[in-house]
Amino acid sequence: MGRVIFIGAGPGAADLITVRGAQRLAQADVVLFDALTDPALRVYAPKARWIDVGKRGFADARRVGAPAYDSTKQDAINALIVEQALDADVVVRLKGGDPSIFGRLEEELDAVRAAGIACEVVPGVTAALAAAADMQRPLTRRGSGRSVAFATAMSREGAIVPTHSADTEVFYMGGKQLAALGRRLRAAGWPAETPVGVVSRAGWPDQLHSDHTIGTLAQATVLHAGRPTVITVGAGAATLDAPPAGTSSDVAAATAVQPAASPASKP
Amino acid sequence: MGRVIFIGAGPGAADLITVRGAQRLAQADVVLFDALTDPALRVYAPKARWIDVGKRGFADARRVGAPAYDSTKQDAINALIVEQALDADVVVRLKGGDPSIFGRLEEELDAVRAAGIACEVVPGVTAALAAAADMQRPLTRRGSGRSVAFATAMSREGAIVPTHSADTEVFYMGGKQLAALGRRLRAAGWPAETPVGVVSRAGWPDQLHSDHTIGTLAQATVLHAGRPTVITVGAGAATLDAPPAGTSSDVAAATAVQPAASPASKP
Repeated sequence: MGRVIFIGAGPGAADLITVRGAQRLAQADVVLFDALTDPALRVYAPKARWIDVGKRGFADARRVGAPAYDSTKQDAINALIVEQALDADVVVRLKGGDPSIFGRLEEELDAVRAAGIACEVVPGVTAALAAAADMQRPLTRRGSGRSVAFATAMSREGAIVPTHSADTEVFYMGGKQLAALGRRLRAAGWPAETPVGVVSRAGWPDQLHSDHTIGTLAQATVLHAGRPTVITVGAGAATLDAPPAGTSSDVAAATAVQPAASPASKP
Repeated sequence: MGRVIFIGAGPGAADLITVRGAQRLAQADVVLFDALTDPALRVYAPKARWIDVGKRGFADARRVGAPAYDSTKQDAINALIVEQALDADVVVRLKGGDPSIFGRLEEELDAVRAAGIACEVVPGVTAALAAAADMQRPLTRRGSGRSVAFATAMSREGAIVPTHSADTEVFYMGGKQLAALGRRLRAAGWPAETPVGVVSRAGWPDQLHSDHTIGTLAQATVLHAGRPTVITVGAGAATLDAPPAGTSSDVAAATAVQPAASPASKP
């Protein structure tokens, strides 16, 4: 019986995986990955068998061949991890971002441990941190930003119900729900003029960053459509005193959209 | 004039830096690091000049030689980064964890940008994620754990004022304040029986993990004394349904302390 290593791949670009994650990948016989993961990660484990469990229809395909599996996709993934670990020495379950944050690690760990299989979890950079790095805006600030909270709408229950307790709140979501998020933030007591930084494809060369307020958040919808998006609200979205090198304060203030070097190359 | 790259080194062990961080380190002429950073990180930049800005007396030493500097340690660090970037092509400011979380990145970015120097920020694994990986307990859970908040007591203002809004709250702090944290969590409305996972030196081979409740949190003080500590409260601290391989449910429940393989080697 083998062992299962859950590895956080980071937010996207292959070089944001940890050195430990890359080294563990090199030991893998099998890698189970999601469709969103950067294909460039394969260089870390060129000889492993890579199985895409994120593609549409994965659970259906499993069901046809093995009717005993539960019908949900997550259950099919859980069963496949266990099945692979019975045959291989090292099975890597590669997850976007960090496995412990919005990664459904709970279900997969439970399934693997219930089968008596040894596990390891290797942490990764979660998307909120990559978005803050892209924006060059720390999530915590002196005096005004002493706590930060992460939330998502990507759950079975549906909508985000934001609170207003941490100084900075970060939301992981698709770009489609921005108008609704703005309304819910207002309802939770955030002032309309609160700064909001929206970053899509954080950590990639084609990341996009735009600045808004809660009152104007809906305007970000078109720019970030169809891209994984991180929304930073509150203290951590405020601009710093000094603008980035090469811009004046006036230019920085007037530039609502700050795309990376080649935003058009990967739309 | 050079450029400054702020790099998150991860929570400690050198192999928890990102591949991108390690690659940028290899380009460094100068590395400014804090005393806490793993010396093994030097293998990524063996030819760079490494300057320890975390040691005691650093600010005082600067003041003697250069009386124009402000007297606080942070101001001395800010000034040194700028000074080095005027001489070197690539200056790396290496920070523990992720630079955007409790890293004082704001002050340093402001100083460097005000001097017209180009910057880059490379994200890292923050200690809360490494602690969750060590515990094999995801910070978010199906249904019960949809949001997670990070806070620290390491600020000029002093004490943590915890709230009770996120399903999981994680505190970065020294082990000395655990009794006070327990009392403040109770005052914020958390029930006494809420699970708490305490991890010190997260991500290192000698990490220590102990399980408590808010009501018994003070008992963790001696075990984690003198070690950087991450305290996970709420949904993310609850045990999973299945125990780790090699333990029975009874054993897992009875084992309050779960040290790593060789906890005694680095006390």
